[in-house]
Amino acid sequence: MVIALLTDFGDYYGGVMKGLIRKISRTEVVDVTHSITPQNVLEGAFLLYNSYRFFPEGSVFVGVVDPGVGGRRKALAIETENYWFVCPDNGIAYPSAIEDGIVRIYEIKEEVSRFSGSLSSTFHGRDLFAPASALIKEGRLSAEYFLPYNDEIEKLELFDVKIKGNEICGKVVYIDRFGNVVTNIREEIVSDLSPEKFILGSLETPFVRKYEDVDVGEPLCLIGSFNTLELSVRNGNFARKFNLMHGDLRLRWK
Amino acid sequence: MVIALLTDFGDYYGGVMKGLIRKISRTEVVDVTHSITPQNVLEGAFLLYNSYRFFPEGSVFVGVVDPGVGGRRKALAIETENYWFVCPDNGIAYPSAIEDGIVRIYEIKEEVSRFSGSLSSTFHGRDLFAPASALIKEGRLSAEYFLPYNDEIEKLELFDVKIKGNEICGKVVYIDRFGNVVTNIREEIVSDLSPEKFILGSLETPFVRKYEDVDVGEPLCLIGSFNTLELSVRNGNFARKFNLMHGDLRLRWK
Amino acid sequence: MVIALLTDFGDYYGGVMKGLIRKISRTEVVDVTHSITPQNVLEGAFLLYNSYRFFPEGSVFVGVVDPGVGGRRKALAIETENYWFVCPDNGIAYPSAIEDGIVRIYEIKEEVSRFSGSLSSTFHGRDLFAPASALIKEGRLSAEYFLPYNDEIEKLELFDVKIKGNEICGKVVYIDRFGNVVTNIREEIVSDLSPEKFILGSLETPFVRKYEDVDVGEPLCLIGSFNTLELSVRNGNFARKFNLMHGDLRLRWK
Repeated sequence: MVIALLTDFGDYYGGVMKGLIRKISRTEVVDVTHSITPQNVLEGAFLLYNSYRFFPEGSVFVGVVDPGVGGRRKALAIETENYWFVCPDNGIAYPSAIEDGIVRIYEIKEEVSRFSGSLSSTFHGRDLFAPASALIKEGRLSAEYFLPYNDEIEKLELFDVKIKGNEICGKVVYIDRFGNVVTNIREEIVSDLSPEKFILGSLETPFVRKYEDVDVGEPLCLIGSFNTLELSVRNGNFARKFNLMHGDLRLRWK
Repeated sequence: MVIALLTDFGDYYGGVMKGLIRKISRTEVVDVTHSITPQNVLEGAFLLYNSYRFFPEGSVFVGVVDPGVGGRRKALAIETENYWFVCPDNGIAYPSAIEDGIVRIYEIKEEVSRFSGSLSSTFHGRDLFAPASALIKEGRLSAEYFLPYNDEIEKLELFDVKIKGNEICGKVVYIDRFGNVVTNIREEIVSDLSPEKFILGSLETPFVRKYEDVDVGEPLCLIGSFNTLELSVRNGNFARKFNLMHGDLRLRWK
Repeated sequence: MVIALLTDFGDYYGGVMKGLIRKISRTEVVDVTHSITPQNVLEGAFLLYNSYRFFPEGSVFVGVVDPGVGGRRKALAIETENYWFVCPDNGIAYPSAIEDGIVRIYEIKEEVSRFSGSLSSTFHGRDLFAPASALIKEGRLSAEYFLPYNDEIEKLELFDVKIKGNEICGKVVYIDRFGNVVTNIREEIVSDLSPEKFILGSLETPFVRKYEDVDVGEPLCLIGSFNTLELSVRNGNFARKFNLMHGDLRLRWK
């Protein structure tokens, strides 16, 4: 079991978190990503949901995409059946925690910031979440640092999709380094439509099983490694070529 | 000995690979890079060739730049005299494996994907290569997961260079973060030419020993840390300033 | 205690350093960042100064932003009260070393390059600094590799700021992934001014305690996690919106 970090911080802020964790605990720290689109909580929640199960049981995830930092949102530590999620209360860990099964929720107290030496209003990754994860790893769940939390936590729905006539409205939840446009439209929904192609504006993308089913440079769509619909260009960059961005996505199918 | 990752995946996909490796084996995982130019197998092969010997003997390299993912190319595990290379059969590990000396080659069976829970058609880094590397690290080379592979593997030549008159035709194989343009023209070839300068189009770049041999902002070329010819601007960015990209490169010399 | 890396190298060159360190020592290596603005020694010094105290005592920092590589600048290993700093003699570790208290300084001898196999003129991160850090970690401070160094080392002042009338002239020392513009104007100086707002050209930015004190999309300034003045846009990107870059910064206040 490790401490795994998933943030929108870039590597320097993430590096400081790793240092501070190691100052408190001789644990192993793994960077999942520090490249989430800045302040995109939905993308963070989607990538966390598509990370945690691949890690050793008992691992502690620090998931921080935190546009509300310094404000009133709570800092939480959520114990689930097999993992821990340390995160702001903005829904980022909600889909993961619900799937794995919530056991107990704690609020992280400001006292945790004594490990970094101060409580800034802009970097709770360093001042609260990193040291809290190390304390959990060390089994130091004392009332000095953690309070039982019995309120509702923020919900976040990953797979909200609407079908109207032959149009499906979902969301672009991630655009990877290859320009593959990952949607939140799940395999089982796509299967029900038994599509030959999806149509985006005037662009037709054949629905195929693998990249090699179209020629190099041609657009396509398929069920990707997230088990959702993805739009791609074979050996190319769909997002750049067709100017796609995060947010709502309307597709027709045939 | 560690498991070392070298891919074009960006950090999230790389992060999932690290999680899954650690789920199978209590090994140390080191990111070499996840920033290879997307689908540039030649750059991947060049950087792998210029990485492996600096790692502890016994290390297992996972080298994945894989435009053919989901298609017919094989997934291989190549044992060499001092290392292992786990990679698609597209030549990415060929120069490294040949240099270190191939001992034995295995094909990775689809059964390995039971560790990630599915065999996607887009992310064999997670479904095949990462778990295969962990199994190798654990000494679990059983017939359940690995088959002896006796066919020819894909070849890839890193240092193909042609000289015609006073023109040398090589390749740009890597452009680093500083905009240094790294070629595949080796030191011994350059020495034979005993050049004063190399000329790119109408741009003259003096051939020097170190950056300080020209003024700040001036172009130059030298033998860089890959032991090949590099084009640079002192304290500047050659690739951006002169709009260089990967691919063929023609230089004259004087 | 770990070996911590902070460079402008990007991940591949940083990856090679990690491999070589692990070849010499079974130590833990932590990437702080490899994304410092290329050749920006001031940014490197600022981030190193804002990293080291968060790491376990005894840690060895390799801090390499090195525009003078291959030239006459010395390669140093600085022992301080609680840490080690391995770096070129260009001031990058000066503020950190002075703060923690210098105990002893060594020059790294070229003989250290036998671990990488050669002394390039462009990549002393691999050929000198990485192996030197591993030797220090192993306690191998022998005269074969290290010389006592008694000359002055290069100075670098992080917090040089001038006040003239109601104008303050400082520096932009870091721009983070969110576009927050981090200055070298320290909290105690700002407090003395008891400002309501800072004015940049014709742009007024209210001085607040936290992002939520202004509306989404609005500019603001506050004391950030570096304990210096930062310019931000709530949930936006200040540097991009107002075209800010590293270097001198003049602000008026009211």
